[in-house]
Amino acid sequence: MHLIKTVEWKNDKVVLLDQRELPLHEIYKSYDDYLSVAQAIESYVVRGAPAVGVTAAFGIALGALSTGTHDMHLFTQKVLSICERFLETRAGNINLLWAINRMKHCLLKQQKKTVVELAELLKQEALKLAEEELHAGYQLGQYGHTLLEHGDTILTQGNAGCLSTPGFGSALALVYTAQEHDKVIHVVVSETRPQLQGAQLTAWELQKHGMNVTVITDNFAANIMRSGKINKVLVGADRIAANGDVVTNVGGYALAVLAKYHRIPFYVVAPLSTVDLNLSSGTHLPIAERATREVTHVKNIQIAPNHVNASNPSCEVISHELITAIVTEKGIVEAPYQSNFPKIF
Amino acid sequence: MHLIKTVEWKNDKVVLLDQRELPLHEIYKSYDDYLSVAQAIESYVVRGAPAVGVTAAFGIALGALSTGTHDMHLFTQKVLSICERFLETRAGNINLLWAINRMKHCLLKQQKKTVVELAELLKQEALKLAEEELHAGYQLGQYGHTLLEHGDTILTQGNAGCLSTPGFGSALALVYTAQEHDKVIHVVVSETRPQLQGAQLTAWELQKHGMNVTVITDNFAANIMRSGKINKVLVGADRIAANGDVVTNVGGYALAVLAKYHRIPFYVVAPLSTVDLNLSSGTHLPIAERATREVTHVKNIQIAPNHVNASNPSCEVISHELITAIVTEKGIVEAPYQSNFPKIF
Repeated sequence: MHLIKTVEWKNDKVVLLDQRELPLHEIYKSYDDYLSVAQAIESYVVRGAPAVGVTAAFGIALGALSTGTHDMHLFTQKVLSICERFLETRAGNINLLWAINRMKHCLLKQQKKTVVELAELLKQEALKLAEEELHAGYQLGQYGHTLLEHGDTILTQGNAGCLSTPGFGSALALVYTAQEHDKVIHVVVSETRPQLQGAQLTAWELQKHGMNVTVITDNFAANIMRSGKINKVLVGADRIAANGDVVTNVGGYALAVLAKYHRIPFYVVAPLSTVDLNLSSGTHLPIAERATREVTHVKNIQIAPNHVNASNPSCEVISHELITAIVTEKGIVEAPYQSNFPKIF
Repeated sequence: MHLIKTVEWKNDKVVLLDQRELPLHEIYKSYDDYLSVAQAIESYVVRGAPAVGVTAAFGIALGALSTGTHDMHLFTQKVLSICERFLETRAGNINLLWAINRMKHCLLKQQKKTVVELAELLKQEALKLAEEELHAGYQLGQYGHTLLEHGDTILTQGNAGCLSTPGFGSALALVYTAQEHDKVIHVVVSETRPQLQGAQLTAWELQKHGMNVTVITDNFAANIMRSGKINKVLVGADRIAANGDVVTNVGGYALAVLAKYHRIPFYVVAPLSTVDLNLSSGTHLPIAERATREVTHVKNIQIAPNHVNASNPSCEVISHELITAIVTEKGIVEAPYQSNFPKIF
């Protein structure tokens, strides 16, 4: 299967698909310095937790290749400060933290090498990390596609596809793998306000991969479930707590409750890098508010009165009781997650 | 309470608040011929079933005042053809049909009058109809506000306010009346894609009337219900079947299921003119699809890929089992609706 390249290392440059231009324009941008990669993350050229993690690793590698010093102490200081710069790009993104920590670990473990050798090793580490994410997506698909039957219509929201990862995606990895196995799958995508990742990104990448896709407004999901047209709901995750509570963009909780009410299986699909065993549950997770402008406007068009209050939480938690199973790259995990996650890690 | 005048008869002209310009501009347009009133309905200058009904009655009165004939037979033919013109403006709008039938009835019952007298009678009939709608809204508020307590936060969707009626509105009549009774009510408004009546209209009119209002995206309703912040859900209705099934814009069914799951009372507020005892249930109601462009675009901004499929039903049905009670201008009706509606009519 020919996958969209969301983030790629190419001739010692970082190439990103500019997701802000989707679904109308497919534009790839090439970056040769780490600062502009950090700015690209901050300005949402790239989004989706795993894709951001890999982009940061690539950015750190890019920075390491051009420190302009052969002094190991100075080199190390410079790369550590580059790591700090990437840490600032997205607070609370667990994949970002994980990717940066891997790069730091590689840096600090190999201090006996020359600067040139270590810079090359950092580049190899970033490529390996990207390859692992790609493989995780592949494995998610291998395990998860068994849940999908020929002729199924699945409902998804947000973007849990190629555009969120350097490879197959998470929830959509199942759909792409099912397609490779000649199962015909129809995907209904909830547009996913306020950021519209469903309409703008998921619909685009599914269409690009030749899938049968239908876009709906978020408030229509309940009614289409009632009609009997939806066989399964598949969503991705930003973070998963030890008890199986799942953090997603706003909208995930509504779909989980509605799926429960309509007795439709509700699957979360995510690589194990998303599981945070240090977070015991999602109940007390502090949730930041994003700019209210995302609610009062759609792409710079004002849709609500001036000065009106709006609420725009950055994420929400799906209680584990609403989830049928969590698909990981090492297998499908069911409740009780508290005891079943450690078995699979 | 000083109410917004959505539709008004003024110096033998019809004045409409141009709702397409909201929430940014408050523009009133004056019409002195029936054809431009019909076109105003068709181009959504005015929307909301009761407001459209009253506008059509005013339009018919306007037409009757300027037929240019004193021959009763010719006058009657002309007014009947004007009625037909208004019937075309919105297929399936029960209030429109009801308003036009009242005007026809007045026309055909008074054939012994002179043309001038009958034209004046038609004008009086239209004004009476508007007054009755205003009074129905007032009565909805008088009965319904008893359901609201000081300090309540209510959730609503679509527009069931002044902008849908020539007066107090339906669901929002309860809020305005509670405010008159010195109860402080906070209103959370779901934006209501695809047409965004919640963000554009409901938020505007609540703010205009000095209410405390917060706009949310439709997919956040579930989570805000879980947080315990919502005390009641109030929605309007386009049509109500004899068994209590309620037809609303898309989104009503989702809110009803989510309210049930979170044990929050779910009230439908609507004048009895909305109840259709000839419709036994909402189950087999044929539902038309509206233009997919409303889903793939927001106000002319494209948010989904070219040529993608989209689903955009014109309405949906809330099953009566999900409804706590239906507030009418003659009292609050509970299940079984089949036997309780006829008692109140």
